Amino acid sequence: MYRNDGFLELGRQECLRRLSTADVGRVVFTRDALPAVLPVHFSVDGDGAVLLRTSAASEMARAVDGAVIAFEADEVDAAAHSGWSVVVTGPASVVTDPVDRQRLIRTGPRSWVARPADLFVRIEPELVTGHELRGGQDSYGVSWPP
Amino acid sequence: MYRNDGFLELGRQECLRRLSTADVGRVVFTRDALPAVLPVHFSVDGDGAVLLRTSAASEMARAVDGAVIAFEADEVDAAAHSGWSVVVTGPASVVTDPVDRQRLIRTGPRSWVARPADLFVRIEPELVTGHELRGGQDSYGVSWPP
Repeated sequence: MYRNDGFLELGRQECLRRLSTADVGRVVFTRDALPAVLPVHFSVDGDGAVLLRTSAASEMARAVDGAVIAFEADEVDAAAHSGWSVVVTGPASVVTDPVDRQRLIRTGPRSWVARPADLFVRIEPELVTGHELRGGQDSYGVSWPP
Repeated sequence: MYRNDGFLELGRQECLRRLSTADVGRVVFTRDALPAVLPVHFSVDGDGAVLLRTSAASEMARAVDGAVIAFEADEVDAAAHSGWSVVVTGPASVVTDPVDRQRLIRTGPRSWVARPADLFVRIEPELVTGHELRGGQDSYGVSWPP
């Protein structure tokens, strides 16, 4: 429902639907005890898990494997003062199961360069939250672009 | 310089220049011991500090005040497999100095709704890093959108 601050909380299914319309999101993790954020291409698995494809040498993959991380995607229309943001929070892990790996090589996020050694990182959709913004302000009271 | 993965590390001044071209970035903080990420409108202060304007009731402002957080802005061209991302990491604080506050009300990030009680949050640019992406892969080996 809309709050009087113009913020509409989105349900889990709507969050996952919007997530699936985005090409790029941001993985939020900890590196050297500092917050780190990295834009990445991704896809959404059947169960709502976020799938990243990265090289075997990926520093990010090492940093997130086994950690609870956040993944965010958004779309903001600066002119219309509107937009949405979805955050998936859950444990991330490098996909090691050979069968799952083969499936993701076929159906997972595409790599721009073919790299057979690619790793897939899976973020479990334990917590899926999102909001739509109308009228230039969100639930945090943060101003949106005029 | 370019690495063979098509990733160009950006210097501090170039990072701040690109940051100043963006309307919306993402503040990365911790809420209830979980990573949180929130898209916000922002501006860059003369010294490179990131300035956010938020309501006095902002949950985010309370969460980041006194904490070391990350702030990220990016621009990705999915068709061209290119883009850039800049991250400012440093201590965040709510601006309490009356003179600084008056200055920011005049020159800081605009609020879509006029709210005299607005808080300003300042993120010190202690660490400013960024990279430009060409050829669909970044320093983390993360695939970019085809």
